Amino acid sequence: MDKQEINALLEGVRDGSVSVEEAMLKLKMQPIREIGEYAKVDLHRGLRQGVPEVVYGAGKTPEHILGIARALRDNGQKTVLVTRMTPEAAALVAGELPLRYDALSKTGVVGELPEPTGKGKVVVATGGTSDIPVAEEAAVTAEALGNRVVRLYDVGVSGIHRLLSHMEEIMSARVIVAVAGMEGALPSVIGGLADCPVIAVPTSVGYGASLGGIAALLSMLNSCASGVSVVNIDNGFGAGYMASMINHLD
Amino acid sequence: MDKQEINALLEGVRDGSVSVEEAMLKLKMQPIREIGEYAKVDLHRGLRQGVPEVVYGAGKTPEHILGIARALRDNGQKTVLVTRMTPEAAALVAGELPLRYDALSKTGVVGELPEPTGKGKVVVATGGTSDIPVAEEAAVTAEALGNRVVRLYDVGVSGIHRLLSHMEEIMSARVIVAVAGMEGALPSVIGGLADCPVIAVPTSVGYGASLGGIAALLSMLNSCASGVSVVNIDNGFGAGYMASMINHLD
Amino acid sequence: MDKQEINALLEGVRDGSVSVEEAMLKLKMQPIREIGEYAKVDLHRGLRQGVPEVVYGAGKTPEHILGIARALRDNGQKTVLVTRMTPEAAALVAGELPLRYDALSKTGVVGELPEPTGKGKVVVATGGTSDIPVAEEAAVTAEALGNRVVRLYDVGVSGIHRLLSHMEEIMSARVIVAVAGMEGALPSVIGGLADCPVIAVPTSVGYGASLGGIAALLSMLNSCASGVSVVNIDNGFGAGYMASMINHLD
Amino acid sequence: MDKQEINALLEGVRDGSVSVEEAMLKLKMQPIREIGEYAKVDLHRGLRQGVPEVVYGAGKTPEHILGIARALRDNGQKTVLVTRMTPEAAALVAGELPLRYDALSKTGVVGELPEPTGKGKVVVATGGTSDIPVAEEAAVTAEALGNRVVRLYDVGVSGIHRLLSHMEEIMSARVIVAVAGMEGALPSVIGGLADCPVIAVPTSVGYGASLGGIAALLSMLNSCASGVSVVNIDNGFGAGYMASMINHLD
Amino acid sequence: MDKQEINALLEGVRDGSVSVEEAMLKLKMQPIREIGEYAKVDLHRGLRQGVPEVVYGAGKTPEHILGIARALRDNGQKTVLVTRMTPEAAALVAGELPLRYDALSKTGVVGELPEPTGKGKVVVATGGTSDIPVAEEAAVTAEALGNRVVRLYDVGVSGIHRLLSHMEEIMSARVIVAVAGMEGALPSVIGGLADCPVIAVPTSVGYGASLGGIAALLSMLNSCASGVSVVNIDNGFGAGYMASMINHLD
Amino acid sequence: MDKQEINALLEGVRDGSVSVEEAMLKLKMQPIREIGEYAKVDLHRGLRQGVPEVVYGAGKTPEHILGIARALRDNGQKTVLVTRMTPEAAALVAGELPLRYDALSKTGVVGELPEPTGKGKVVVATGGTSDIPVAEEAAVTAEALGNRVVRLYDVGVSGIHRLLSHMEEIMSARVIVAVAGMEGALPSVIGGLADCPVIAVPTSVGYGASLGGIAALLSMLNSCASGVSVVNIDNGFGAGYMASMINHLD
Amino acid sequence: MDKQEINALLEGVRDGSVSVEEAMLKLKMQPIREIGEYAKVDLHRGLRQGVPEVVYGAGKTPEHILGIARALRDNGQKTVLVTRMTPEAAALVAGELPLRYDALSKTGVVGELPEPTGKGKVVVATGGTSDIPVAEEAAVTAEALGNRVVRLYDVGVSGIHRLLSHMEEIMSARVIVAVAGMEGALPSVIGGLADCPVIAVPTSVGYGASLGGIAALLSMLNSCASGVSVVNIDNGFGAGYMASMINHLD
Amino acid sequence: MDKQEINALLEGVRDGSVSVEEAMLKLKMQPIREIGEYAKVDLHRGLRQGVPEVVYGAGKTPEHILGIARALRDNGQKTVLVTRMTPEAAALVAGELPLRYDALSKTGVVGELPEPTGKGKVVVATGGTSDIPVAEEAAVTAEALGNRVVRLYDVGVSGIHRLLSHMEEIMSARVIVAVAGMEGALPSVIGGLADCPVIAVPTSVGYGASLGGIAALLSMLNSCASGVSVVNIDNGFGAGYMASMINHLD
Repeated sequence: MDKQEINALLEGVRDGSVSVEEAMLKLKMQPIREIGEYAKVDLHRGLRQGVPEVVYGAGKTPEHILGIARALRDNGQKTVLVTRMTPEAAALVAGELPLRYDALSKTGVVGELPEPTGKGKVVVATGGTSDIPVAEEAAVTAEALGNRVVRLYDVGVSGIHRLLSHMEEIMSARVIVAVAGMEGALPSVIGGLADCPVIAVPTSVGYGASLGGIAALLSMLNSCASGVSVVNIDNGFGAGYMASMINHLD
Repeated sequence: MDKQEINALLEGVRDGSVSVEEAMLKLKMQPIREIGEYAKVDLHRGLRQGVPEVVYGAGKTPEHILGIARALRDNGQKTVLVTRMTPEAAALVAGELPLRYDALSKTGVVGELPEPTGKGKVVVATGGTSDIPVAEEAAVTAEALGNRVVRLYDVGVSGIHRLLSHMEEIMSARVIVAVAGMEGALPSVIGGLADCPVIAVPTSVGYGASLGGIAALLSMLNSCASGVSVVNIDNGFGAGYMASMINHLD
Repeated sequence: MDKQEINALLEGVRDGSVSVEEAMLKLKMQPIREIGEYAKVDLHRGLRQGVPEVVYGAGKTPEHILGIARALRDNGQKTVLVTRMTPEAAALVAGELPLRYDALSKTGVVGELPEPTGKGKVVVATGGTSDIPVAEEAAVTAEALGNRVVRLYDVGVSGIHRLLSHMEEIMSARVIVAVAGMEGALPSVIGGLADCPVIAVPTSVGYGASLGGIAALLSMLNSCASGVSVVNIDNGFGAGYMASMINHLD
Repeated sequence: MDKQEINALLEGVRDGSVSVEEAMLKLKMQPIREIGEYAKVDLHRGLRQGVPEVVYGAGKTPEHILGIARALRDNGQKTVLVTRMTPEAAALVAGELPLRYDALSKTGVVGELPEPTGKGKVVVATGGTSDIPVAEEAAVTAEALGNRVVRLYDVGVSGIHRLLSHMEEIMSARVIVAVAGMEGALPSVIGGLADCPVIAVPTSVGYGASLGGIAALLSMLNSCASGVSVVNIDNGFGAGYMASMINHLD
Repeated sequence: MDKQEINALLEGVRDGSVSVEEAMLKLKMQPIREIGEYAKVDLHRGLRQGVPEVVYGAGKTPEHILGIARALRDNGQKTVLVTRMTPEAAALVAGELPLRYDALSKTGVVGELPEPTGKGKVVVATGGTSDIPVAEEAAVTAEALGNRVVRLYDVGVSGIHRLLSHMEEIMSARVIVAVAGMEGALPSVIGGLADCPVIAVPTSVGYGASLGGIAALLSMLNSCASGVSVVNIDNGFGAGYMASMINHLD
Repeated sequence: MDKQEINALLEGVRDGSVSVEEAMLKLKMQPIREIGEYAKVDLHRGLRQGVPEVVYGAGKTPEHILGIARALRDNGQKTVLVTRMTPEAAALVAGELPLRYDALSKTGVVGELPEPTGKGKVVVATGGTSDIPVAEEAAVTAEALGNRVVRLYDVGVSGIHRLLSHMEEIMSARVIVAVAGMEGALPSVIGGLADCPVIAVPTSVGYGASLGGIAALLSMLNSCASGVSVVNIDNGFGAGYMASMINHLD
Repeated sequence: MDKQEINALLEGVRDGSVSVEEAMLKLKMQPIREIGEYAKVDLHRGLRQGVPEVVYGAGKTPEHILGIARALRDNGQKTVLVTRMTPEAAALVAGELPLRYDALSKTGVVGELPEPTGKGKVVVATGGTSDIPVAEEAAVTAEALGNRVVRLYDVGVSGIHRLLSHMEEIMSARVIVAVAGMEGALPSVIGGLADCPVIAVPTSVGYGASLGGIAALLSMLNSCASGVSVVNIDNGFGAGYMASMINHLD
Repeated sequence: MDKQEINALLEGVRDGSVSVEEAMLKLKMQPIREIGEYAKVDLHRGLRQGVPEVVYGAGKTPEHILGIARALRDNGQKTVLVTRMTPEAAALVAGELPLRYDALSKTGVVGELPEPTGKGKVVVATGGTSDIPVAEEAAVTAEALGNRVVRLYDVGVSGIHRLLSHMEEIMSARVIVAVAGMEGALPSVIGGLADCPVIAVPTSVGYGASLGGIAALLSMLNSCASGVSVVNIDNGFGAGYMASMINHLD
């Protein structure tokens, strides 16, 4: 509820068109719709934050995911992104709604992918092939939120020429998502080469002293390159969302 | 060295205006100037990344800082930002060069603060008063890189009304830097309120189980809000730099 | 064995109604009943601590759980709460004793839920829907111990208006249990809003840098709000028990 | 701002006694007073949460502490508790305001200690003598907030008879603060003996594998006793505040 | 090879009864027998350390365990203890050799349990019922190495009277093994009561902040009681072995 | 692309035999062949680093492994080492290509093992039998890269005579790979005995406080012996590769 | 208070020589003497545990230490061991009482060292020279408690011959204290050589990945040798006390 | 004592030139000389391991360092390397012995630097200027052990062109020491470029999430480049020693 709305409401009270009780109610009322007993969905988020509601699938039953997706669609949301979606949930949803499901990244898109509305290109790069599932979560998220995405996979720092042979893509990006496990050095090298913001995503790829991605995470937080910030381990969605937000700035 | 330069160089070789040896040299030559024996300074960085070279003062002697600042100034750089600058270094530099020094954040600016060239406003918010030194490092960095900065200090989540009374500033930001120690919850709440990117900065403020800022760092990495990414503990500079980069996107 | 009992015992010895040997025995005897070989059950706990014995089901076989529950019932305990109860244990117990089993929180109540005897209301709030199983363990525990419980689920800090729209419930609570995973910020915000004690329960909900709930735990321990204390990760029972104890204070 | 106030405000708008602009202002206005540039002080907290504002002295200059204390006193607050107060700050404040300063726990009380208003007694117990500074922070906090406090110091579990000889005090408490470093077992033993809530405070007392209090913290979080919750390492204030809150419940 | 043997060998060389080459060989020869390709078994260990070779079953196939047990028996060892023995291995070994297998602690004894040769009694105590498997590994180990064992199970510190009612057993022990998970406080309390060495065994019993037994381990290492030392998490065997070694000292 | 190649290229441009566009292309072109969409294989690595490309099997499907192996073979690589190869992948590859598969270490060698070209012997030692799978990964790696390997298994430091009886092998090594879990002390002892480089490999063998190999890793990093360096937990391949590199130095 | 004393007390009550009130008092009374307000000293500990009270000096003022030592002496204790004693405390105590102070280990002995009453010899060994302060704390503790001590310093595992040249001392020990920092491997090697109990003491000697002694601690907890148990980092006192207890077993 | 010496000894016993007692003595005697009471110095190490004894200065008094250095010189060792040497120790030693002291790396060389005897060049590279002290410890160590050293400082991965402009030095190395703090990515990039072994040295340079060098250490252990092994944080000496050992292999 923004300033104009409060203003209008108060003027309504002054001129009698709105009763005190109605105003009290409105001031308390939230643009939230409860779906069954299991979730509060924020239908106005598209207005407030410029992006539609996304469904985080982990820990939700296929039935819940379907219920939420249907509610969002009924409310007029054209594209519903579902992350961490199990194949079972995908099968259930696909039986009722138009769904594009990517089994590798466990990401589903209900409805049409929107036309790109971002200002430039989002580059998604990975250190190795094992990082691709996380990278795809970022890439599909960015696409579902209206961005053109360029994928640069398997360009890790131990073969630096692989990365250098893609300087053109790197220099043409408006924002870069750099995904890496193990030593997590990719964002530092890209951050030193690029002149745009870099979102670093550590992955849980590795073993032993990788500590489930902690090594890569620490590495990225300590990047000696400027213009690098970090999201949680394996959080491809968060990086894609952040990249989209940056790419849509006027 | 970009594509055009390589192109020009190769055409020079073809038409004989550049010898093979000269070309070889140029292909290897880097726009780096060695200052004494203690540092390689990247003079072309302003061109390549759109921002001038910054001096990270930690671990450098006052003499080194002065030497580097002078070299950058001689090379035509109008504003030289120095972070983690001790009062001793500030005293030495101020004796020779025009310096604005902020003792709280240990940040110095040699020369003039530039006119704001960023597209919008950078909001820098803190949870408590103890977080202000880190926040000021972010704020001065952003200002030195050409941004208008709005400061919202001491608006932590345990008194949520303090934050809510500043919704107007939050909604008018193009990018927000949220600085917090202890439980580090500020970026999550701001991330849920704002419709622009949020750069979260954990601080080492706290004691006991704050683990020198690790608690706040983990909290921010696990933010349930979208559009939040994180930099290292106490890394005000990194957040200010990232914010400036985002704020200067066309 | 309290002061009065020792007094009576000694007087019995003095007047000869109790022999030295009997007194010696009594002084050593404990109000503990061994059930088979697998557990010592504290039958007097209801008297001493004001609450009946609870069965912690983790690591116990269905047969053991049934045995302990039956023994408690035989001793006159009307309500037996069983936590961390597997569906298998529930099925076995339900065949012999009246059982209300909640599969989500894996909590069972043998016998009748008691009438609320607490002074006020216990509010149980969660940050997200995934925290509900832990919250239900707290809620059912509180109910089994004689409390009225108000549930406020999915009111996490990244959508602060969801929480603010329930200020009335928050302000009317006598004690609040705040359950959250990921960044664990909910107790800090509630602690700043409420004027009653808040028991914070971190959950293992999350991934990557949530470290199985450690991130939320640290966040809660570092809460900048006063009046917040913390129990172990996923320890809904402990929070519900503590809340009940507080709610029953005269 | 509670329901009645909003109601009154809206009725004022309706009958014209309050203009729309004034109402808008009031809806936004917060009961916060900015003191210089360094702090926002919450003057209404005494009303809202039932306890007066407390000054957390760590990281504040003596001048800031004096300024805040004077402002609170000017606002009519009779007792101002200052925690983590350096001797320097104490000396400065004592020059202007009536101060009781405890150098061991670094706690200061400006003005009179209030008459006890709590329902019962707060027992503060420690495992060893080295834990006393933290315990005193808890005890003085509780006293400053209107509680009778009973101190049981040096009753650690490796000499269990020391604790058992104080059963009477333990059984007569309305809430217990149990403070311990090293293995942190005291709250578990007390929790098993007492029939009231126990607030556990780990201290950083110890060396080596005590990890600055982490060992005691983990021990307390894993307590096998019910009715125990935990605050941050060395957070005597937090425990005393929580204990007071519980002790003042009707 | 001890001093006497070297002496005899050298005298043999001097008087010609042993050749230089033979002596060289003997000096290098080790009392180790290779069994197939998978293990070197130390047949002289019984002589050197006073206890027979024990088979650590984890990571060994049933066939390997059988092979080693048979080789030890063929070498004259009457009792062969096998720890971490799967039911499959037990079934295989029991088909060929006389085996007593305890499924709870996964411990097997091939051959006869020896007569107790230790000087006194080994008391094995646990905090809860879930710690019993680890305690039984300790108890069976001690029995297999020739000790009388007294078991005190489920005497954890949150019900201190349970422990105090067994003071007689505690005071009559020559060495105590104290086994506990969760907060791991049992050894501290026992260490304060007993006048004999206490071997503390943390167990991985617990959840959340128990960190797989790390909490109990740290607690025990920080014990404020003297005369307590610690073995690895769940290492019942190590504690039983150490206890036996102490109990067999002349 | 080395100096000579750049020289030749530039001379070609000068004399017109190479066009500017071709030169531009060559300067960017990398000796990398993309196989399907899933991997970039570095065919020139054999030339550049002296060792052929190795396939890290973890996280790759059997089909991917087969595809990469076939591509490397087609490119003329005689021996293809595959690490972390599942039995399923081995079965698939063995159906098409000549494969030697070791199920214990999950290592496969496609094609012939090369003749030893290393200067001396590589000794691979383990502390226990459970460390053998990791040791075999190191040993097979070294063999596949052209080294003679001597295996010394089960020579851990708790039976130091087992190690001392193999001094001859230790002293005759050119480089030693020392593999150990649990306390990880083997490399320290060997490092003190040997006069050649020692590569230490911690293994995840152990339980409880071994923390999945972290204990052994830390132990090795803190070795008081000189001439010891460390690779990741369970990284037999890395140690074998490093050993081969050292053993092939002229 | 043991069985005989309770018996006598009860008989006294029966025959009227002890009143009920007196008996009640005695049953509650503890053999503890409060010294000033700062410590409870257990004067009966010498009787109960066979060893006199020891003063842990850390965190105590010189005046407190002097006060406690004097009280113990007044109570008839001939030898008072003070650990972690600062030079300032030593100077103060030495002015009033006969004190032997070792500045290296910061250990003081007030009064005479007792005649050795232990059954055998306690061997104290260290890996390096930097571990000697901790070792001396153990050695002086053992001597103050009545043990003959043999010191074997600087016999670390990276020069295994240094240790092996002292086999005679190792084999003649009744209990061994093995002190080591860095990789902490000494107890494992000694544990494999000796046939008596080994108390392992990790020290904080080292840097970087030694993590203040955690590396050595973990190493010792994971020892592959049997008959090894561990005390806290730098806890020389604890090891010396445990060794003395074992050495005094009949 | 090697095989030939044992052989000769035994032949001496056989032919009567050596008595049994003398032989026994020799078999036990170690080539170790005790200096005062504070250190055992291994005078034969030069023979056994091919490198002279080095003095680790940390924790040693200036007097001890001087004593050890003098003893080694008296024994004929021409070059004595002292690491972690304080300026005070340097001043004392320089008063008596010829010393070259580097205050930056705190490294001293007593006597002449030897002529290079290594086969090739040792390259020592750093990520930043703050890593130089550790790098110099490695470089001086290598020089003191007879190696030519090439220094490449401040070539970190966030400005990859700085490193690439030194490809010639990298390709001409026989072994490389790569020193880096913060994200520790340098060894991975160098490991991918070079065809020789790389010794990675993490430094404690950084702040916050660098965790005193743990982030860099983990990063290096997880390097995706082959041919990289790691030493302890800040262990320049260990890396220089290992590099020298590799560089001296025939």
